Amino acid sequence: MPRPERQLIERVRSLAQAGYSGRRTLITGIGDDCAVLRPAAGHDLLVTTDFSLEGVHFRREWHSPESVGHRCLTRGLSDIAAMGGEPMAVFLSLALPGDLAQSWVDRFIRGLLGLAARHRVALAGGDTAQSPAGVLADGVFADIVVLGSVPRGKALLRSGAKAGDRIYVTGKLGLGGATVRRMYAGEKVRPASARGYFYPEPRVEVGRKLRGVASAMIDISDGLSTDLSHICEESGVGAVVYEASVPVAKSATLDDALYGGDDYELLFTSSKRVAEEIAGVAVTEIGEITSRQGMWIQDERGKTKTMKAKGWEHFRAGNR
Amino acid sequence: MPRPERQLIERVRSLAQAGYSGRRTLITGIGDDCAVLRPAAGHDLLVTTDFSLEGVHFRREWHSPESVGHRCLTRGLSDIAAMGGEPMAVFLSLALPGDLAQSWVDRFIRGLLGLAARHRVALAGGDTAQSPAGVLADGVFADIVVLGSVPRGKALLRSGAKAGDRIYVTGKLGLGGATVRRMYAGEKVRPASARGYFYPEPRVEVGRKLRGVASAMIDISDGLSTDLSHICEESGVGAVVYEASVPVAKSATLDDALYGGDDYELLFTSSKRVAEEIAGVAVTEIGEITSRQGMWIQDERGKTKTMKAKGWEHFRAGNR
Repeated sequence: MPRPERQLIERVRSLAQAGYSGRRTLITGIGDDCAVLRPAAGHDLLVTTDFSLEGVHFRREWHSPESVGHRCLTRGLSDIAAMGGEPMAVFLSLALPGDLAQSWVDRFIRGLLGLAARHRVALAGGDTAQSPAGVLADGVFADIVVLGSVPRGKALLRSGAKAGDRIYVTGKLGLGGATVRRMYAGEKVRPASARGYFYPEPRVEVGRKLRGVASAMIDISDGLSTDLSHICEESGVGAVVYEASVPVAKSATLDDALYGGDDYELLFTSSKRVAEEIAGVAVTEIGEITSRQGMWIQDERGKTKTMKAKGWEHFRAGNR
Repeated sequence: MPRPERQLIERVRSLAQAGYSGRRTLITGIGDDCAVLRPAAGHDLLVTTDFSLEGVHFRREWHSPESVGHRCLTRGLSDIAAMGGEPMAVFLSLALPGDLAQSWVDRFIRGLLGLAARHRVALAGGDTAQSPAGVLADGVFADIVVLGSVPRGKALLRSGAKAGDRIYVTGKLGLGGATVRRMYAGEKVRPASARGYFYPEPRVEVGRKLRGVASAMIDISDGLSTDLSHICEESGVGAVVYEASVPVAKSATLDDALYGGDDYELLFTSSKRVAEEIAGVAVTEIGEITSRQGMWIQDERGKTKTMKAKGWEHFRAGNR
């Protein structure tokens, strides 16, 4: 008796099998009670889970299914990157309204698997649920789990920043915040005009190359100010950011860079001077870690004011 | 600027820290981009993810928060048990309606952590989302991820059953189906009268002891007929079940046992004769694997009829 869920599982299974097989580490994938993985000897295991919820993290009228699938996986891969790790396997739990078109699911999975293949990571399992409208919300709920590995003891934590360390970011910031602002203003944003927002590239290779270089690292998913505050809290330090040094994306404002979200760049600290480009990605020095706790932004004349950790509110009803 | 999500994360974090620490394998838990785990050398890694969705897997008016939390984790632990593995760490992703009482969340987490502590497994991370009513459904959405380990190459898969193997189940079956039937009929079922349904005990110790004994194994979460069909499909074999041997729970019917769900017992095959009790749990021989594909049920006079894999439909609207 084929049930909708069973059909969905088979569909995801067949699409996943067409994707990257991960045969070095994945012993048993979709189709048993658990997936069986064989991590490399002498490596620690990294685990991250991230929701992608319609109405909170995306809107079907704003984001194509491919973009939702891509961004869903980016959230997880970016967390692996922020630990200096290498992704190993992906698990996707997907709850869908019963009346969702099969083509939406196929395109979502394709967006996710395209990014997975480029990072050589297999879709190894997950869970699915489908329900008539009215029981589940008329919304798509995805939970992505990414497993990764890092040489034993080499994971880059948020807690390693020390006074005097320099603060760096990869790429440019603010495109996420700016794009969301444009969409809230009613503008129909073409994916090609904001590719880094609709198809953000998790900085896995950069993260890996920062092992032994960075003292603390985090990915910028909630805006520079919020994510820097996490490093400060976990490390028991403070930070000064040089306003003129923050690499602001074209068409974005400084506020977008400091308080926007969904940029998926890396923010890290180091006692060393770091190259201006790593793995083809620009790296910019933007400030310094202080022993005094708190966060400040310093303008070109040397004047500082307090910087608040203003959070990223996603696509909340009533927001903005 | 404390956001509701931030408060929820802090709440879960502090409750998790009061729980089992898992300090042997958990290097870094909640509070970084990823959790860092150190699996035992020479072990394979097991990963399972399971949704627990309001309206699909539970109803707030039928299940206490503690029961929902306990059953949520049971789903994952039972999958680890079905591989012959040992649980290592739990990750919980939780989306909640904004108007849900804090006490519901606390009691849910307590139900989950109580079971986790007894299995010495730490809550190591996850994700949270909270939203005003109307954006997310007015429902609780949980996704549980359990990581486990098993000695290298010793995972018990669904695909190892061979013709002539005997079929066994642990415990008694049908309590899940019977209890749901009673609740659908409008009966208010007291947890004490159906403890095995509201607080099912995943058979982790039994599963571990079946390494090297069972040829194939699965947990019965969708009813005996459906889960046996998974073993048959993955192993390329068939099965005969002896009607009179199926251990039916008190107050349940044979149909509840064959077609009900949520029993969380183990179903396994073995070429050996297995003890009638393992780790204090009854083990019953209920049939035999056949080379001919298909499933049959045989009555006491030796008459067989086809057994269909009738699935478990959970608490669907319009169901039954």
